[in-house]
Order: sequence, then C-alpha cells, then structure tokens
Amino acid sequence: MIHDKALQIAVIGGDLRQAHLANKLAQDGFAVSALCLEKDVYLGDEVQLGENAKKVIGTSDVIILPLPVTTDKVTVNAPFSEHKISVREVLSSAKKGALILGGMIDIDMQTKGEQLGLTLIDYLEREELAVLNAVPTSEGAVAIAMRERSSTIFGSTCMITGYGRISKVLARMLLAMGARVIVAARKHSDLAWAKINGCVAIPISKIKDYTSQVDILFNTVPAMILDEEILSSLSHDCLVIDLASKPGGVDFEMAKNLQIKTIWALSLPGKVAPISAGEMIKDTVLNILAERGITIGPN
Amino acid sequence: MIHDKALQIAVIGGDLRQAHLANKLAQDGFAVSALCLEKDVYLGDEVQLGENAKKVIGTSDVIILPLPVTTDKVTVNAPFSEHKISVREVLSSAKKGALILGGMIDIDMQTKGEQLGLTLIDYLEREELAVLNAVPTSEGAVAIAMRERSSTIFGSTCMITGYGRISKVLARMLLAMGARVIVAARKHSDLAWAKINGCVAIPISKIKDYTSQVDILFNTVPAMILDEEILSSLSHDCLVIDLASKPGGVDFEMAKNLQIKTIWALSLPGKVAPISAGEMIKDTVLNILAERGITIGPN
Amino acid sequence: MIHDKALQIAVIGGDLRQAHLANKLAQDGFAVSALCLEKDVYLGDEVQLGENAKKVIGTSDVIILPLPVTTDKVTVNAPFSEHKISVREVLSSAKKGALILGGMIDIDMQTKGEQLGLTLIDYLEREELAVLNAVPTSEGAVAIAMRERSSTIFGSTCMITGYGRISKVLARMLLAMGARVIVAARKHSDLAWAKINGCVAIPISKIKDYTSQVDILFNTVPAMILDEEILSSLSHDCLVIDLASKPGGVDFEMAKNLQIKTIWALSLPGKVAPISAGEMIKDTVLNILAERGITIGPN
Amino acid sequence: MIHDKALQIAVIGGDLRQAHLANKLAQDGFAVSALCLEKDVYLGDEVQLGENAKKVIGTSDVIILPLPVTTDKVTVNAPFSEHKISVREVLSSAKKGALILGGMIDIDMQTKGEQLGLTLIDYLEREELAVLNAVPTSEGAVAIAMRERSSTIFGSTCMITGYGRISKVLARMLLAMGARVIVAARKHSDLAWAKINGCVAIPISKIKDYTSQVDILFNTVPAMILDEEILSSLSHDCLVIDLASKPGGVDFEMAKNLQIKTIWALSLPGKVAPISAGEMIKDTVLNILAERGITIGPN
Repeated sequence: MIHDKALQIAVIGGDLRQAHLANKLAQDGFAVSALCLEKDVYLGDEVQLGENAKKVIGTSDVIILPLPVTTDKVTVNAPFSEHKISVREVLSSAKKGALILGGMIDIDMQTKGEQLGLTLIDYLEREELAVLNAVPTSEGAVAIAMRERSSTIFGSTCMITGYGRISKVLARMLLAMGARVIVAARKHSDLAWAKINGCVAIPISKIKDYTSQVDILFNTVPAMILDEEILSSLSHDCLVIDLASKPGGVDFEMAKNLQIKTIWALSLPGKVAPISAGEMIKDTVLNILAERGITIGPN
Repeated sequence: MIHDKALQIAVIGGDLRQAHLANKLAQDGFAVSALCLEKDVYLGDEVQLGENAKKVIGTSDVIILPLPVTTDKVTVNAPFSEHKISVREVLSSAKKGALILGGMIDIDMQTKGEQLGLTLIDYLEREELAVLNAVPTSEGAVAIAMRERSSTIFGSTCMITGYGRISKVLARMLLAMGARVIVAARKHSDLAWAKINGCVAIPISKIKDYTSQVDILFNTVPAMILDEEILSSLSHDCLVIDLASKPGGVDFEMAKNLQIKTIWALSLPGKVAPISAGEMIKDTVLNILAERGITIGPN
Repeated sequence: MIHDKALQIAVIGGDLRQAHLANKLAQDGFAVSALCLEKDVYLGDEVQLGENAKKVIGTSDVIILPLPVTTDKVTVNAPFSEHKISVREVLSSAKKGALILGGMIDIDMQTKGEQLGLTLIDYLEREELAVLNAVPTSEGAVAIAMRERSSTIFGSTCMITGYGRISKVLARMLLAMGARVIVAARKHSDLAWAKINGCVAIPISKIKDYTSQVDILFNTVPAMILDEEILSSLSHDCLVIDLASKPGGVDFEMAKNLQIKTIWALSLPGKVAPISAGEMIKDTVLNILAERGITIGPN
Repeated sequence: MIHDKALQIAVIGGDLRQAHLANKLAQDGFAVSALCLEKDVYLGDEVQLGENAKKVIGTSDVIILPLPVTTDKVTVNAPFSEHKISVREVLSSAKKGALILGGMIDIDMQTKGEQLGLTLIDYLEREELAVLNAVPTSEGAVAIAMRERSSTIFGSTCMITGYGRISKVLARMLLAMGARVIVAARKHSDLAWAKINGCVAIPISKIKDYTSQVDILFNTVPAMILDEEILSSLSHDCLVIDLASKPGGVDFEMAKNLQIKTIWALSLPGKVAPISAGEMIKDTVLNILAERGITIGPN
C-alpha cells in the first residue's frame, strides 16, 4: 500500500457533488486541483483552483470527471462553470498512465482513452456506489410521498414493485415509519427476503389483487409493469412514484387519462442530497484507489 | 352501550380535517350534517349539507367544532366557508343536554355553555389525541429536514431536546432512517428510556458538549433552551427546527445574527397531513362518545 | 459537585449483581469494601475484602445493601457468603449521617434507620431502575419463549396484556424479530402508543376476540386477568408467560387443568443477566449520589 | 396451472419438520400418506398412515424425503420410526415419472433415480429455503448468546464475520435488541449494505483492530478465520459462536487452550424450531410444485 501525499488529483466539472468530492479528498490529504467549478459552489482552501487547465490535467495522476461525464457527447458536464472543456481535450492532455474516473463513460471515450495509454474506470458501475445511492433515492422518494399527500406515511399501505437495492432500503424506511408495505417481485428468493424483512410479499402476477388497497405505489422495475389494467385498478387517490430509469415502468399517458397522480422521479441522489451523493462517490473513488495500492491516512 | 343510528351530529367549520371527520363519521353510520364547510372541500354523499344552521344546531345531539374553535374569539373558525357563525350563536341554539366538542375551548366558552345546560369537552386535551398527533408532527419535521438540507438523514447526527411524545416518535423515525440521535433531557427516567430506545442520552446541562457535532437540532421544549451560548456552539451549517409551541425554545433573533438557519414549525398535523389529523380527531371523538355509552357498529 | 475520592463505600451481601456493582464502583475510583461476598464471586483487586465487619460499616459514608435487602426479615440476604449479618446490626453500626441504599427497604427498617440518624433510600423505587430493568426482563421473556416452543418468534402472534415499561420494551423486541404483536390495555393513550409503535392495540375487554390466534401470551398486569374464560379460549399449544409480580395475573390451577403450558417468570434481571442488572443498579446509585453532590471522574 | 386434488404425495421418514410438512400439505388439500413417521410425532387425521410401503410409494405422484435424505448412505433417515426403508427401495418402487424431493440428494442417488425415469430435486439447494432458514438460525444463535452469558444483548458489542444470509438476519435482530454490531466482510458492496443497515462495517483484514471490544463473536464464514492471532486478541469473557458449516471457521483447539468459550452451533433450524423449519420446507415444496403446474387452492 502506497501512502502517497504527493498524488495529484484533478477534479473537473460537475455539480455540488463534485465540489464536495474535491473538498473531501483535499481534507483527506490528497493534492487536489479543481477545474470548471468556479461558480456558486463552495471550495475549501485546501483545493487549488486550476488556472491553466492543460497544465493541471497534464500533471495529474488521477482525473475525476463528473456524473455524467458529458450531456452533449462533446464537452465535460460543468453546470457551475463558464468555461468549457471537451472530453477529447482532457484525454489528450492527460499524461500516460493517468487514471481517469467518471460516471457513465461511453464506449467511444473508453476506446479513445485506452489508445492514449490511459486507464478509464466508470465509478457508476461499482456495486457499492449503486448500493449507497439507494439511500438518497429512498429518502427522496419518501419526501415526495410526504409532500404530495395529505396523509401520513404511518398507517398507509405502500406497494413496491421489484426488490432490488432501492426497494430494500425504501421498504425498510416505510416500515419503520409505520406503513404496511407490499412487495411485488418475481423470484421466490426475493419474496422470501421481503417476507423476512417484514413486508407482505406477493408474486408480481398478483399485483392486481392488491392494488385497490394501495395508497402509494413505488415502481422500481424499468419495464412497462403499470399498464392500463393495473392503473385502472388503483384507487383514485393513489399516488404513483416511478423510480425506474428510462423508459420507466408506467404508462404515463394512460395514468394521465385516468387522472392518477404520477411522478417520475429520476436521479434523486444528486437532487435531494448532493452532499451525501458526493460523499458516496468519494468513498467509491477511495476504494478504487485503494485497490490500486493508493491510500492516504491511517485507515 | 347504546347502538344509536339516529344520533344527530353537526360538524361546523374547520378545514380539511373537519371535512374528513364529517365524512368518516357518516361512513360509520352516524347521521351527520355539515355547516360552514361548503368551499373547496370534499364532502361525501352521506353528509347532509345543512341549509338552516339554527335548525341543524338545535336538533343535534352532538356538535363538533373545529381545532381551534375560533381564531378571533367571536366566530367559529371556518376558512372553507363564506358564512360566518358566532360561537355564542352555536351555544344558544343548541338543545339542552347537547354535547359540544371542540379543540382549544377557552374558559369563557366553557362557562357560558355550562350555564346553558350543555356539556363541553375539549378534545385537544385528550391524551390519546396528543399522542397520535406526534406522528404527523414527526413526519412533518423529517420532511422539513429533508427539504432544507443537501444531505441525507442517514448518516446525520440529530439532537432532540426533551423526551416527550413528539421526541419519542421523532427519535424512532430518525434512528430507523440511519441517523445518530442524541436526546437531551432532564429526568433520569427519560434518559433511561432514550438509551433503551437506541439514542445517546445526555443531561440537558451537557448540551454544549455535543452541539458541535450536530447536523440537525430539533427542539421540543417550550422554554428558552437554545440561547446565545448554545447557538454559538453549533456548526455553521446546522439546521435548527423548533417544534415547541409558543413561545418556542429558540432565541430567533440571535439565531438570525449568527446566520443559523432556523425554522419554527408550528401546527404541523393540520398542515402536512390534514386527512390523517382528521382521522385522529375522529378516533378521539369516538372514544369520547363511547365513554358516554354512544357507539355505532360492531366494535 | 464534590469530587471525593476518599468516599468510603461498603457493599454488603447480595449476588452476582452486588459483586459486579462493587467492582464497577471501585473501577470508577471509589474506595469500596465488600462484606459477605466471599464465595464463588469474582471481586477485582480494587475492592477491599472487609475483615472486620463492624469497623467497615462504622467507617463507611455509603452502605449498599442488596436487592432484596433481606429474605427473612432478619439477616442481610447473602447467598454468596457463609457469614451472616443482621440488618439491625448494620443500622446500629453505621456512623451518623451515613447513607444506606438497598432494594425493597421495608417500613420498619426505614423507621429504625431514621431514628439512628441515617438516610435510607430504596433504589428499587427509582423510576430509572425500573425502566432499565425492563430490558433484561424482556430478553429473559424472549429467551423463555424461544426455549419452550418449536417455532420461531418470527411469524408468531404474540399478545401482551398491559402497556407499561416491560410491555413497551418487550413489544419492540418481538416486533423487531418479526412477530405480530397484539397489545391489550385499558387506557386510550396506552392504546394510541401501542398503535404508533406498530402493535395491534385492543381494549382489554376485547381480549377474548383475539385469543384463538395467539401463539404466546405475555401477561404483565398483576391482577387476575387470565381467568378460566380467557384460558379456555386459547389454542391448545399457546404458551403463557406471566411476568407480573405476585399475585401474578394467571389462574395457574385452571391453566394446569386446561393443559395450557404456563410459566411464571419472576425476577428475571437477576437470573438472566446479573452483570447487566448490577450495572443498572450501579448507574442508579451514581444518580442518587450525584443528586447529593457526590461524584467521581469527569462525567 | 393444474388444480389437482387427486395428487398423491408420500412423505417418508424425517423428524418433526417432516411430520409438520405432512400435516400442512394435507391441510392444504393434498392426499398425503406418511411412512416411517409413527413414533412420538403428531400426525393429523388428514394424513394417511401408510401400511404397505411398497404400494404407497408405487402409487405416489410426489415423494418427499427428509433433510438429510440419509445419514448412512443406505437407509432413509427416520429417527421417529422403527421401520427401515432403503433409499434404493424407494427409488425402485416409485412409478415412472414420479417427482422425488429431498434434502441433500447426493450424486449417486441423483444418477440412479434418473436412470429409473424419475425426477429428483434437492429442495435444500433452493435459494428461498436457504434464505428462510436464516431466521431460525439467527433466533437460535441469539438464544445461545442469551443462555451462555450473564449480560443482556442490549448494550453488548457483537461482531459478525461475513455478510451473507444468516449475517443479514442476525445483524438486524441484534441491532433491534440494542446491540452494537460490527460486520467484517470482504466485498465493498457487502460493507456498503452493512453500513446502510446500521452496522459498523469493516474490511475482514481489520478484524484485529476491533476484537478487544467484542462481547460476542458470531462466525458465518466456513474458512479458518478465527485463528490463534484473532483468538488471542479477544477479551477473556468473549463468547464465540460458530455458525459456519463444516469445517467451521474457528481453531477450536486453540480456543480451548486460550479458555475462550466457543460454541459450534450446527443445523439450528431443525433443533430450535422444527415446526417453523417444516413450514419453510413446505413452502419451498409448494413453489417447486407450482413451477411444474401443480397447485391447490385459491392462491
């Protein structure tokens, strides 16, 4: 294990999460420079504000790009900056052997980077980050449910489709708040877990037998599960919150026709808890570094 | 026990809570008339819309006034109505022996009513309603904390002053969401309970030893506890949520000077969960009626 | 607050709890002597073994007697000793102004002590000790249920009568293990709490409507609640655990006739967790001393 | 889906679990015959006692063998019977196309059965049964900890090695009882889950930094983790409970030398909760049947 205070890290672009990540890495003792993060974000004194982007990038051992790396396939995603820097420029300015970390690195970028002798790692594909992200996602979902309804979570009947990471954390939270939680899932082992964890566990094929009792329906399955048949069976004041990434799992058009209030809540971690989300990315980055023998401090 | 379907109940004024109460009592089989509740609220078909207020009041066995009964000491509090009816009129129109229920009945009204041969009961003084109200209050407090901060409740350090009804429910909720909860209370037995329930329990005199670690401080004690000394010891991004009724427990002026974000959250149940709050009032009203031998249905 | 390392404490008689108490007080920095505790118990090096009982008692500022102080109304309860010392002798040997602490001090002893210029305090009457004792009692009750049955607590239906200290802790434990918990209580506010805490809450008058579903019935009410009528309504393999102090709340004779397995579990803390029980008495003793201005160490 | 009341099921040998399974399947409406289960077990009236083993086996559509199927590789494991029947005999008497279910079917039996045109399924390899078994295992582990120690689980520090099925359930139970739980695991994602679920999560390589604080150490990893170095670092009154199947994860010889109390708790479900364990096998059997289109009743 290398204890390497001289390790140079560049943090480029991104939002509050990325700024918090920069601050935290600097507090941990790394030499951190920030680029494209100069507007409306708080950066601590320990973080160097990079003046010369090319030089900063060229001298960094590790370059951390935001989540997502880019929204236009050309420039680094940098909503808190007036500067623009292209992904291509970052790659070509990086020194050979540098480690490039980012969220949602596409295949083109991956190929290009490797041709230049760089190592690219998509931290969003790390299982531990996906697990940790379930926490702000669940809190955000609960906050939406609280905001949109005139009743307490306590005493409500919630249904959750799927029993993956988000469902597990969300179910636990709702149960602890006094809701009755029905989990609809396919696999027998998932249903066994849901039952052990205090939920009513039903096969996904039986959803319709339970929908009339449901006050809040959280979907986590990215497939069209909540179709006309299911939506029509809901009570008129049921709230539907779709947490599944695109294409989602709700027939939104149909829900609108049926006057079922439906909210498609995407990318909650960055929206409801950017500080915590930044902290989680930082922990994941540290894990990636530690696996490569790079570590700081006594832990 | 009297099973009395013919019992006449008048529900007068109030907000969504009172409307929900009317609906629920009617669904339970009581004969319910509503007065001063005609605007922007949903009343079910089972509820009679009282046309002639005097007649409705004069023929009712039980009259349910809102919470609070009045905000101007003269008229019944009726934000969802264009009609006005005075408290005095209600009392003088009621038939002898009628039961008048309301929230926050003052001493004048009590005396006046009793002189007229009426029985007046303040449902807000019922212990079970105070207990039940702790649920929407706690959910509302958590919702505020989620909305105002950029971090998750999970992983945060929360301090709660006092260990009464609200604190107990709130602490349980925060713990279940993964917060560390410090309870500051006076009585040894309260501290013993807080410890058993999973909190860090500290005497109220030691608050200052812990404040620097606190991310969210919930006050439930209606006395000036959070004074300059305590407020100055908080970290700059600590959020203070005061749940104590007037005069509150925070030196708000000082908090403002110190740039400590402070929210005084009063009357949360009616704001965040009027349906549930109405349900709770209904349960309490049913308890009051049952104690007087009036009951409906198989339970 | 007096920081008084020279304070002399005598710990007399008792069982493992009392021995643990002596050890802990000595570790906290008090000068502790033990009497009538020489057999089969572990006393640390910091505890003085009193040779001359009269001298030890006569020079002590605080004298801690066991729980209960006596079982025969004459001698101090000392199962781990071959020596006998009478309560009367302890009182008459104590120096004027000494503080005598004990569990279950009777009125005669209280009077006699006060006549001799002593201050007697029954620590068992301290609310915080009663609260803390609910933990080992509940764990002991769960352990009995596990040992006596061939099914898991998970998935079982438990009924608890009463909703005092033990019930609150026990209910929480059972719920967390996945049981369905029915609480039968009298007061509306207790029922409100039970409901908030995740239990099915029923008035005590309705017990019989639920008994046929019950797998384990825990009684905490010290009055004959489980009479022939209730016992006859239980399923034949229901387990009854009576946690109420004498006279208990079960018609044991009738239960035997009906072949209902019934266990009267008394004084669980000292039996199932003497170390923890001793720790709790110690904490309570420290609270008593602190209220009198006697304290040791930084807390 | 076939609703087939005429389906013939033979339940052969085994212990209380198998007897409970027979009763439950009969209550569900299947035609159930029991063999080798005539001593000291309760079989309901709905279960046929097979007189002629050969005939019962030859006419059954489904044959359920115990867990484990055999302990001597020759006869069916039947501790509650004076009859002996060989596994070979069962297979050769079964009718072609019959479904044979059993726990721990070895490769020889599998091959032999298939040659005879039978379908053999080992229900112990079903993920849902493994998940459900974690509940009685965890309750049994907690019961051992309660029985062997003089302190409460509340307030104790527990360490669990590994974060698989048993650990997840056990950790939740201990946390709910008020223990501090340290989980030592290898994978970053397991550590993330442990942290989310309220545990202190540490890499397995850091165990030794925490062992001195541990009161109860539960091992779930079937590899020699608790070697001399770790065992020597434990406090002298730490209790070690090994829940890992053979070869276990503790150097028992060394633990004995170091006078560390160590309990190797194997096969807890059948021991501590045979009724529940039988219920779980039944649920799994029903899943297996349902997947083959065989079902009974409205669910």
